[in-house]
Amino acid sequence: MLSNLERAATLVEALPYIQQYTGKIVVIKYGGNAMIDEELKQAVMRDIVLLALVGVKPVLVHGGGPEISQMLKRVGKTSEFVDGLRVTDAETAEIVQMVLAGKVNKSLVSLIQNIGGRAVGLSGMDGGMLRASAKDKRLGFVGEVDEVNAQPILDVLNSGYIPVISTVGFDADNNVYNINADTAASSIASKLSAETMIAMTDIAGLMRAKDDPSSLIPLVDLKGVRELIATGCISGGMIPKVTCCTDAIEQGVKKAVIIDGRIPHAILMEMFTDAGIGTMFVKEVQA
Amino acid sequence: MLSNLERAATLVEALPYIQQYTGKIVVIKYGGNAMIDEELKQAVMRDIVLLALVGVKPVLVHGGGPEISQMLKRVGKTSEFVDGLRVTDAETAEIVQMVLAGKVNKSLVSLIQNIGGRAVGLSGMDGGMLRASAKDKRLGFVGEVDEVNAQPILDVLNSGYIPVISTVGFDADNNVYNINADTAASSIASKLSAETMIAMTDIAGLMRAKDDPSSLIPLVDLKGVRELIATGCISGGMIPKVTCCTDAIEQGVKKAVIIDGRIPHAILMEMFTDAGIGTMFVKEVQA
Amino acid sequence: MLSNLERAATLVEALPYIQQYTGKIVVIKYGGNAMIDEELKQAVMRDIVLLALVGVKPVLVHGGGPEISQMLKRVGKTSEFVDGLRVTDAETAEIVQMVLAGKVNKSLVSLIQNIGGRAVGLSGMDGGMLRASAKDKRLGFVGEVDEVNAQPILDVLNSGYIPVISTVGFDADNNVYNINADTAASSIASKLSAETMIAMTDIAGLMRAKDDPSSLIPLVDLKGVRELIATGCISGGMIPKVTCCTDAIEQGVKKAVIIDGRIPHAILMEMFTDAGIGTMFVKEVQA
Amino acid sequence: MLSNLERAATLVEALPYIQQYTGKIVVIKYGGNAMIDEELKQAVMRDIVLLALVGVKPVLVHGGGPEISQMLKRVGKTSEFVDGLRVTDAETAEIVQMVLAGKVNKSLVSLIQNIGGRAVGLSGMDGGMLRASAKDKRLGFVGEVDEVNAQPILDVLNSGYIPVISTVGFDADNNVYNINADTAASSIASKLSAETMIAMTDIAGLMRAKDDPSSLIPLVDLKGVRELIATGCISGGMIPKVTCCTDAIEQGVKKAVIIDGRIPHAILMEMFTDAGIGTMFVKEVQA
Amino acid sequence: MLSNLERAATLVEALPYIQQYTGKIVVIKYGGNAMIDEELKQAVMRDIVLLALVGVKPVLVHGGGPEISQMLKRVGKTSEFVDGLRVTDAETAEIVQMVLAGKVNKSLVSLIQNIGGRAVGLSGMDGGMLRASAKDKRLGFVGEVDEVNAQPILDVLNSGYIPVISTVGFDADNNVYNINADTAASSIASKLSAETMIAMTDIAGLMRAKDDPSSLIPLVDLKGVRELIATGCISGGMIPKVTCCTDAIEQGVKKAVIIDGRIPHAILMEMFTDAGIGTMFVKEVQA
Amino acid sequence: MLSNLERAATLVEALPYIQQYTGKIVVIKYGGNAMIDEELKQAVMRDIVLLALVGVKPVLVHGGGPEISQMLKRVGKTSEFVDGLRVTDAETAEIVQMVLAGKVNKSLVSLIQNIGGRAVGLSGMDGGMLRASAKDKRLGFVGEVDEVNAQPILDVLNSGYIPVISTVGFDADNNVYNINADTAASSIASKLSAETMIAMTDIAGLMRAKDDPSSLIPLVDLKGVRELIATGCISGGMIPKVTCCTDAIEQGVKKAVIIDGRIPHAILMEMFTDAGIGTMFVKEVQA
Repeated sequence: MLSNLERAATLVEALPYIQQYTGKIVVIKYGGNAMIDEELKQAVMRDIVLLALVGVKPVLVHGGGPEISQMLKRVGKTSEFVDGLRVTDAETAEIVQMVLAGKVNKSLVSLIQNIGGRAVGLSGMDGGMLRASAKDKRLGFVGEVDEVNAQPILDVLNSGYIPVISTVGFDADNNVYNINADTAASSIASKLSAETMIAMTDIAGLMRAKDDPSSLIPLVDLKGVRELIATGCISGGMIPKVTCCTDAIEQGVKKAVIIDGRIPHAILMEMFTDAGIGTMFVKEVQA
Repeated sequence: MLSNLERAATLVEALPYIQQYTGKIVVIKYGGNAMIDEELKQAVMRDIVLLALVGVKPVLVHGGGPEISQMLKRVGKTSEFVDGLRVTDAETAEIVQMVLAGKVNKSLVSLIQNIGGRAVGLSGMDGGMLRASAKDKRLGFVGEVDEVNAQPILDVLNSGYIPVISTVGFDADNNVYNINADTAASSIASKLSAETMIAMTDIAGLMRAKDDPSSLIPLVDLKGVRELIATGCISGGMIPKVTCCTDAIEQGVKKAVIIDGRIPHAILMEMFTDAGIGTMFVKEVQA
Repeated sequence: MLSNLERAATLVEALPYIQQYTGKIVVIKYGGNAMIDEELKQAVMRDIVLLALVGVKPVLVHGGGPEISQMLKRVGKTSEFVDGLRVTDAETAEIVQMVLAGKVNKSLVSLIQNIGGRAVGLSGMDGGMLRASAKDKRLGFVGEVDEVNAQPILDVLNSGYIPVISTVGFDADNNVYNINADTAASSIASKLSAETMIAMTDIAGLMRAKDDPSSLIPLVDLKGVRELIATGCISGGMIPKVTCCTDAIEQGVKKAVIIDGRIPHAILMEMFTDAGIGTMFVKEVQA
Repeated sequence: MLSNLERAATLVEALPYIQQYTGKIVVIKYGGNAMIDEELKQAVMRDIVLLALVGVKPVLVHGGGPEISQMLKRVGKTSEFVDGLRVTDAETAEIVQMVLAGKVNKSLVSLIQNIGGRAVGLSGMDGGMLRASAKDKRLGFVGEVDEVNAQPILDVLNSGYIPVISTVGFDADNNVYNINADTAASSIASKLSAETMIAMTDIAGLMRAKDDPSSLIPLVDLKGVRELIATGCISGGMIPKVTCCTDAIEQGVKKAVIIDGRIPHAILMEMFTDAGIGTMFVKEVQA
Repeated sequence: MLSNLERAATLVEALPYIQQYTGKIVVIKYGGNAMIDEELKQAVMRDIVLLALVGVKPVLVHGGGPEISQMLKRVGKTSEFVDGLRVTDAETAEIVQMVLAGKVNKSLVSLIQNIGGRAVGLSGMDGGMLRASAKDKRLGFVGEVDEVNAQPILDVLNSGYIPVISTVGFDADNNVYNINADTAASSIASKLSAETMIAMTDIAGLMRAKDDPSSLIPLVDLKGVRELIATGCISGGMIPKVTCCTDAIEQGVKKAVIIDGRIPHAILMEMFTDAGIGTMFVKEVQA
Repeated sequence: MLSNLERAATLVEALPYIQQYTGKIVVIKYGGNAMIDEELKQAVMRDIVLLALVGVKPVLVHGGGPEISQMLKRVGKTSEFVDGLRVTDAETAEIVQMVLAGKVNKSLVSLIQNIGGRAVGLSGMDGGMLRASAKDKRLGFVGEVDEVNAQPILDVLNSGYIPVISTVGFDADNNVYNINADTAASSIASKLSAETMIAMTDIAGLMRAKDDPSSLIPLVDLKGVRELIATGCISGGMIPKVTCCTDAIEQGVKKAVIIDGRIPHAILMEMFTDAGIGTMFVKEVQA
């Protein structure tokens, strides 16, 4: 166990890292294991409340895959498929909306409030934040973001709350769309000109050799990403995750980081230690 | 059809009524038929957007009975009973939370935004608005409000949005409580020192003779209510509704009104015409 | 007589029109019959108070021809003429100042206050709003605006009042100038980057065939105006009125409208109905 | 002629006097000779602009007796009398309004602006500042102040202008009342909790021996005034002037001073020199 | 060495302690060994910058005994004595002023700025903060605080700086007084209604048995202090230090703590750990 | 002696000069005789308090040569020389810091406060205002300004205080540098985009014929200065003083003036009279 002196010294050692982020917006895409495991969930919320306390402006964007599947199953909803892709009909979209904006979102807000933070949950409808349309008519209400209105997020931040965001969008006919949380986080981070976007995943980061943690790539730039895709090092399910990071960078976010959400306090370790964890994406690595 | 002149004249005739409410907070308990019928729903939302536009500060508090029942049925949830009263177990409370905060709330926000208003949906968790505890341990998560934190509502109002509120509360252990919307509206109106609380119901108001609209009581004070209860004129299911109104009055709300939500634009008719509609409760009727 | 439901519905139908103007500055040149007939005057003031109430920022610019003539007659002042044009000597200018800034202006302010609006009357001297000089030395104190200082108007608007403006200007030697109210309104609207300038007149608008209301031109752009002047359709006394509108448009005002002040609530009908009334001038009509 | 050194030294010597008044409201009742003589008028306006520049908040309240008489004469208006008192009929009240709010007020504003100050003229109608009613029905529109609304004065001060006030009042029926400027200044000073009210007159101040300047009373308190009235030292036309001062004192104004407006820069001499001039009224003179 | 995970966990564990102090003013009396040892000095400044970063409002009050003695010796200044007490003549007072306000104060400000904090140094003269007079005429310019003007401290805090205060006072004749830093810190903390006053000393705190750290008294209230003085447990040089703490408590400061400045990061350990260190003084210990 | 009327008239005559400077920043380099003679010192401080009172924003930058020499002598510090130039070792730099920031600065602040002004003293360390480095390594801690951070000066101005600045700079290693006050004043004036920089010296200004006051050059532009240097009219010790003025002008200060600090109230005479005194530098004299 740490002595009180070690505790105090640790706080002071975090000083220069904290100073770097004070007053800056950090968008955190929250998902994966860190959202399922109760202890990890608590740890993430504590990290975020701490960020808010030391003057950082965290914006939490969450998905909710497992809880959605569970609820769909519970109501006996089976999915249709078009060309092998799952169709989101209106009924499914409504379930998604209920689970994300009603259950997951409010549970996170409740956790943050009980830790002593201040949070307000927002969906894409609130303040007209996420205007969406169908990505592919055949897939139904799978949406893509047409326009992000950052005002409600900024209003919530300026009133001193941590915005917790469900990525459900809507259109002029009051249709509801399920929007991929990674993509939405990227769009939101861009619109907010965030300092950093942190994507919590269930992998350690980009690795040169598959499943070999010692080959972790700590820092990569846009050119590097193109090469890694060309050589097949980034492939399959990693491509969309990486694309969200590079999209954010290209639209003005300074840094994007993929971190391993399975490690407790991964956010603080990334932000407030020298080593950081995971893979950081930047526009251009200085030679 | 009205001529343009008649339209313009009507606007001007509303002037003194509007002036009375400018800058004042009006809490509207939204429920019953006005929430089920699509056309009525649209009409209510338009009324509320208009109120916001003319400088009134509307706060919408909604329930969601029918949609909750439907969802419970859909997931095959049957209720237990204790002494003949329905028990809200944790699973039910979660469904309530999802339907109210996830579906109903966000659909209303979506409607308001598409009419051209600005709205943000809040649950009792957001900003720690509604701290609750069990009313009766045996009934599970049926909650009563321990404390209303008006700050998140005021923050949302001051940022220029219409707050739309789901009456789900929470406690320090992250339990979720289903709170009666009438009671919650009354507590919220008191805490906000609202000018008026308007409760939308499926009746025309208090009537001296049951089911005889011609016996409608347009105005009653606290003493009058006590007499009407004593004489049995107010009885059964009306008692809790009336109590919400008198509670609000006793805790500082200037006026409380029970209106018939089945009539389109009932809110505007109540607020912006001489006659008003329904039954108004005040502290003391001047002789 | 309208039912309360019709009244409420009418308010709601005005919603989208009102939303268009919320927060925008609308300069109203008030004059002609609407200023002489007591009932019309009351109606105009109500229209303006309503505009303020629904979030529009009206600025009222008034003339006062008939009252000036009457006063000049009363003090036995006869005018000299130069080349057939009436000369405004210092004594006449002083009478103009008294009638406009002392009588007409303050009477309008009084009316607005008694309707429940808030107004402050300003002359060109107040806050140094209208610096003027002689248009033609031989005509004496007939002024043209050298410089509009919009600050006092904005200060009055920002303090929550409706500015009511007399178009009397002054120079560095404390001379007073009578300034044509149409011209002044146009300059003021430009300086304020107003959304709309509405000129109240005693005609229905521009007409293709003289005195034939069915030939009313509802919308015209700068190119159209030039053609109408070329073809003689706009001529005589209409030319200066039209020029004020086109001047305003050319200097950044979005729309200018000539409406018939003899119709009660013409302002609201123009702004808050689909049809509008009178003739609207814009920069360029979209094909 | 003064050397530059003498000039600079004089400025510095005024320092402690200026410091005493910085940020304080000083109501100046402007009238008498200082308003008729062009040079004195200029001097007074310069004094007031200087006050504003050094951080004092001057509020100028003016009458306009001679100009009113002249105008009445010019329109051939003869007055009726009731019990020997002049009746102000509606026509006369309108002339008063025109002369005060239209001519005198705006001329003063013009002067101040041209000296480099910033002024906005207000009548009792503006912002509903002076609600009035008839003092004595038989005398017509001679008004007494029912209520002073200080808000428009404070709004004008806070926007950085010198308020110049005509003492014309109005009622709910849009009637106009001529209000005695001394009385109005006293009511306004009280409502503004002014530091000082300065009344410019054509006498040197209160004198123990009539017309003997050496018997000037420089300082007197409420008790002293009562004695001077009892002994007949204050009598006749002096009584209302003195009453305005004592009324102001009794309603919270710290000091009231009667100064001789015939002396150039009397205001500055009173405020910024040790000796002061005229007679100062205070609540209680310290023994 | 700590792992990154331990570091992150430590930050999060400090959360509830930090939350307790967010937005609160903490006055730190800095002196003794912590001011002489360069490493300790750096550690204290880092602690203070961290406090500011996490939303606490630290106010640093410093003495400077050793540096003053050294400078007096260097200029060959020997002290006179009256009844065995050292006299502070004008020359000595000037040296004190130079060393405290010129050297010590600015060196601390320099340190804070270079760590990345923002600081402004203030002496008792700045903004007229400490008006003082002689405690005992025979001792010359040893001052006692007549009046604390908290405004300059609040202005500096509100502009986002850490106020660093030298306890030199002045009087209306521009005399300079050396004021005991403990006493000044107590007066300043009272005037600021600080949450806590922390006095850094060279002892571990109050001990029941002299020099026996195991007998440390962690918490004591006003009644307890009176008893400890009565029993002789608090005596000699401890009495004035304890009196400063109890004075502060009696004048509205919530807590006062004597901590051992020889321990690095003693401030953080006191504020951000459960155990705390040193002796805390409160008004009344709850049974 | 002046009569009260002459005093009042003088104040009013200063009006247009004061109006010119209202709200503008004026940097005053204070030094020379005006800093040694007690009476002159008092006069300068009164001038500055008056400036602040009439709405000018004075910034006082002071040196302190004689007091530094005296203190160095007193501690028996003898200087080393390199190539005939005096070396400022760390010990000397510390004495400079003490005398400037501790004694001179705080004495001036004390004087201003006792005259009734509000002042806060700042050194180059406060708020990180003056980052410096060695001008010439061999001369030790003689600094040149690397960067001026105007924020602390603006913060102090905006809180309503007169900033009094000691020109001591610092670097990232907490070294202290003695910075020439003329140069620092010029850099500060540039960074603040001051209206005027006034340098107080012990000469009457630039003279065409040495020591012949009748040959004083009242106004000169950059081109003129180059000619005067070329012809040898400006030479020796005057060159650096003139360069500070021209540097300021080139970096955006509107006017720079060298005035004779031996004349009481020289600042006011320069600013508030037609003639001015001394030599004014401008970018380009209009033909």
